[in-house]
Parts: sequence; C-alpha cells; structure tokens
Amino acid sequence: MITRIEKSKAQQRAAEMMRQAGIQIGDHEIDLIEVVDFGLSHLETEGVQVFTMVSTQRIAAKVLVLFPNQTEPEHWHPQVGDDPGKQETVRHIWGDLRFYVAGDDNMKEGFIAQDKESAYTLRHERVLKPGDQLTFEPYEKHWFQAGPRGAVLYSFSTTVRDGLDGFTDPDIQRITVVKDED
Amino acid sequence: MITRIEKSKAQQRAAEMMRQAGIQIGDHEIDLIEVVDFGLSHLETEGVQVFTMVSTQRIAAKVLVLFPNQTEPEHWHPQVGDDPGKQETVRHIWGDLRFYVAGDDNMKEGFIAQDKESAYTLRHERVLKPGDQLTFEPYEKHWFQAGPRGAVLYSFSTTVRDGLDGFTDPDIQRITVVKDED
Repeated sequence: MITRIEKSKAQQRAAEMMRQAGIQIGDHEIDLIEVVDFGLSHLETEGVQVFTMVSTQRIAAKVLVLFPNQTEPEHWHPQVGDDPGKQETVRHIWGDLRFYVAGDDNMKEGFIAQDKESAYTLRHERVLKPGDQLTFEPYEKHWFQAGPRGAVLYSFSTTVRDGLDGFTDPDIQRITVVKDED
Repeated sequence: MITRIEKSKAQQRAAEMMRQAGIQIGDHEIDLIEVVDFGLSHLETEGVQVFTMVSTQRIAAKVLVLFPNQTEPEHWHPQVGDDPGKQETVRHIWGDLRFYVAGDDNMKEGFIAQDKESAYTLRHERVLKPGDQLTFEPYEKHWFQAGPRGAVLYSFSTTVRDGLDGFTDPDIQRITVVKDED
C-alpha cells in the first residue's frame, strides 16, 4: 500500500529521472506513471516506476525507473492461454543497474534486502552499461536492482499481463493499492 | 544504390543525431545502423536510417532517423501467412516531424518530392511534437517527413518483415544495394 501523496511524489521523481536520462515525457503524462510497491509497502526498498509508451494485445514498450538502491523483485512471465508468455528485452539507458539471472553466484555490487534471502534465489550478477541489453524468454526468472544513482531502462516486450506474473516472494501482490491519507 | 562511403557517412550522421536527441548508442553499434534508400538512389530526398534495438519473431523496437527534409515513402504492412500484419506505434523524440495518414487534405508544412505526386496519395498532415505518438494497424497506409532539423523517433511494433511491406511507388525496392566505389 502507498498513499496518494507517496504516489504523486514518486511519479514526479521518476519523471525527473527520465528527463535527466534524455527520455521525453510530457507534463500530461506524469500522472500516467505507474508506481508499484508489489504490495510490500516499502516502495523505496522494493518497487518500480513504470511509464508505458505502448501496450496492445501484441506488444508493449515501457520505460522503467528505479530509485537509488531500489529493487524489482524476482519474477517470471508464464504462459497465459494461447500466449506462450511474455518475451522481454531490456536496454539500459542511464544510471547504475545490475540484473540477476540464472548462473553461478558472482554477486559483488548488489545486495539482498534484509530478511529476504529466500525471495531472491538468483545470484548471478550482470552489471549493465548504458546501451547494454538482455533478453528474457517466457519463464526465465530475473530480478534487478539500481545502484547509488538509480537507473532508467527500456522494456520492450510482447503483450503484458503483469497481474499474472510469477514471483518468488509469496507476499507479493502485483497490483498496488493506493490509499487516501488518514 | 548507395556507395560504402555514403553508407558510412549516413551512419555517423544518424548516430550523432540520436545522441543529440538523448538516445544511447554505443560506438560499436554505429555500423549496425541500416541506411535505406528504397532503391531510389537519392538517399537525402527519400530514405531513412534505422537503428534496431530489438527484432524477434514477435516484436521489434527501433529508432528511426530522418535527415533534414528527408521523406520515408508511403507504405503499409500487409498480412504475411498466419501473422495478421505489423502493428506499429511511432513516438516522436526529437526534431521536426510530420506524418501523413488517411483523411482530408490539410497539408501545410510538408511537401511532395518533385515528379512524385502519384507515389504519395495521403495528404492528411499530423505535425508531431516530442512525446506525441501514433499507432498504425496492418494495411493502414502512412508516410512521414522531417522538417529543417531532421527527426528522431521510436518505432515499436510486432515482428518486422520489411522486405514484404507494400509501397505506393512501384519503383521502390526495400532492400538497399550497397556498392563499392568505382
């Protein structure tokens, strides 16, 4: 859960980071940035900000923003009916970004959030530079984390069904609840 | 037909325009920019430069660069076998850009290349600002043109089969021939 004020501040901050990274976003589009806390209610630690440029029944193109040291939890994109599952390519644009994928444990720059060892099973670290990209096939687990400056990246994919993604952490709810202030 | 030197110069110029627009491209990626003269052998008038970030059997994400006053000819994306045809969203990033789509003739900023009246049937002009975007369904004809500064834009789409696109101009060959200097 996040409050309306938290959401609004996160949208503004994400838009500023996008512009710093050279990505165009109109003032009228800032309200459309999705602020995702994965139902964990500690956005700054585990969360992501998503600006969707395109989303159809066939394709999606998004800009993802991570605040400094923010982590997007470990997940995968399963088959849904006739769709074999989301195929996704991420391309790093700006900032400090590392991905965790299948492979031997070579974790060096990143960290696992406190008491979350079991929610992050992948420890093979890929530190990306701007312009670097990675492709994930359906069911291929991954998670990613920003370093001290935060990160801005693209996600290009087949159709998106975020609500049906799989997560290692059983506490996660993909749909973020936004609450009015008390 | 273009020469190797023309191709190399156009790649360098397109990369500089992308960077000016805030789009990351690595030095090792400049050689991968496709320079397309549509078989018309006057690249500066009718042509496009294409940097492909992603291209799979399901999706594609590209950056298109138009030099000042360069025009991408009128075309459409037909059905191919089981694929209902390319669905494409373009998003303007930087520079002066107008699209021509179905509708009444309101052409004001753009122009038709000399002796090419019959190759450009659409005259409904949409002048885009950075951040503006348009979506084209399969078979939906369109063409576009840069103004005095040139233009940089994204194209997000389902799978690309450029060689099978339809063009109004019967002289067009989508695959550009690159020739060594004499």
